[in-house]
Amino acid sequence: MCYIAFMQEVTITRYAHNQHHELRDTIADEDVLNIDVVYGPPHNRNTFRLSSTMRTPGNDEELVLGLLFSLGIINHLDDVHDVTSCKRGRLDPMAQQTITITLNPRLSFSPLNFSFGMPRYSSCGICGIASVDAQTRPLTHKDISIEADLLITLLEKMAAAQTAFKQTGGTHAAALFDYQGHLISCHEDVGRHNALDKLIGAMLKSHALPLHRSILLMSSRASFEIVQKAATAHIPIVAVVSAVSSLAVTYAYASNITLIGFLRGERFNVYAHPYRISSS
Amino acid sequence: MCYIAFMQEVTITRYAHNQHHELRDTIADEDVLNIDVVYGPPHNRNTFRLSSTMRTPGNDEELVLGLLFSLGIINHLDDVHDVTSCKRGRLDPMAQQTITITLNPRLSFSPLNFSFGMPRYSSCGICGIASVDAQTRPLTHKDISIEADLLITLLEKMAAAQTAFKQTGGTHAAALFDYQGHLISCHEDVGRHNALDKLIGAMLKSHALPLHRSILLMSSRASFEIVQKAATAHIPIVAVVSAVSSLAVTYAYASNITLIGFLRGERFNVYAHPYRISSS
Repeated sequence: MCYIAFMQEVTITRYAHNQHHELRDTIADEDVLNIDVVYGPPHNRNTFRLSSTMRTPGNDEELVLGLLFSLGIINHLDDVHDVTSCKRGRLDPMAQQTITITLNPRLSFSPLNFSFGMPRYSSCGICGIASVDAQTRPLTHKDISIEADLLITLLEKMAAAQTAFKQTGGTHAAALFDYQGHLISCHEDVGRHNALDKLIGAMLKSHALPLHRSILLMSSRASFEIVQKAATAHIPIVAVVSAVSSLAVTYAYASNITLIGFLRGERFNVYAHPYRISSS
Repeated sequence: MCYIAFMQEVTITRYAHNQHHELRDTIADEDVLNIDVVYGPPHNRNTFRLSSTMRTPGNDEELVLGLLFSLGIINHLDDVHDVTSCKRGRLDPMAQQTITITLNPRLSFSPLNFSFGMPRYSSCGICGIASVDAQTRPLTHKDISIEADLLITLLEKMAAAQTAFKQTGGTHAAALFDYQGHLISCHEDVGRHNALDKLIGAMLKSHALPLHRSILLMSSRASFEIVQKAATAHIPIVAVVSAVSSLAVTYAYASNITLIGFLRGERFNVYAHPYRISSS
């Protein structure tokens, strides 16, 4: 395999109409990232392995910042003292990348909340949380409203930004737009929750949180974890290309998030809080 | 919301061509399942909360059996003494379903392997495992070979069995076929790894493991965890409708699994071990 950033080139056998031939193809890269959290007062620092996650390499720092934010471990960039990334034994193809995030010593953090009884969500996302309810951060923003027509234009803008997907067909995208429909940022990953973590982490890094006046568009389905992560970042409108789950709808109602599914072509469905969408 | 087995009925607002109207729609159900493991000798039983997972209700017992099998906690149905399921406070809409799996007292189980440092994979799947390498169970079966044409016929057979998807558009399917292309079983869930856990758990319950002479078809992409779960069940051919990730390919090569991606219409790509596929 030949490694090129977010993808790998491989030799495959293609079968079509009962014939086959070998060719080179590019596939989305997926690799382990260990996430260590250093916490505690200066005289008694401890390290905790929060998670070992599969992700598409790239924007690892954003991924970890976004994950810790969604988990409620950090609330501001100030809560982070330092982020370092290293790969032991670079010559070993099995060497694993480890990113270490050192928390501000004044921040209280208990690894016990992230060890036993961690939930496995339907597409992962927030492993390590003991209670779903504990994750709700209700939106308290000045509200926005958008035209139905504007929503439809976002699909094409996201597609243009899906660099990895264009080459591999194997990644999901999380794209953020302002309420006038301008693309703010787009991140991709084999895991949809990773893509969203990277996006939120990037916004945290650029001091853009909370995202009161923005629209999240994802190339995937919406399960609970997607809406939960959007809620932590105070995103009022969440749209997905595919279906939504029942818990995503329940959570969107509870968090005052407008939830849109099956955004395709000229149409879409609104599953919660349609009041933010106007049409002529 | 009105609850009907694997789906919920909701009122939505549909926007199309700049008009909108309200209608009833069905969406895939997603809800919490707590998984408790009771282990240890008869005089010293302990309970461990292995996980709280989001899943589509239905076949919970199969889901848990398949998960524990893929995690290597159990290897045979004999390793399980009992499975009970209960929902405390049924009148409380927030009541959570808990399934308790009691291990055979002679089985050795250490919760420490499933607590700290649990990996989060790109679409979850096997949270709680300390090492990716530890999961490899190489295939040691009498090998099979199939015609390319047969593979193409499986798509339609799986589609016919996707009851939940037909009504919600929001679930993934894991379908198992024999090497002559007959459907053995099909399971659906909002999480693709849950669908596969249910399938493998159902096979375990019916004493059908290992699955040496079968083909797995999934409606999703293939990431590492899908191939890993197939390997634990000794499935030699894994086909998916969408893309494959780099780690899925690496793992398929190492586990001697034929990995097929983009199985659509009359064509597909083979990413590892094409020798099991013949074409004229």
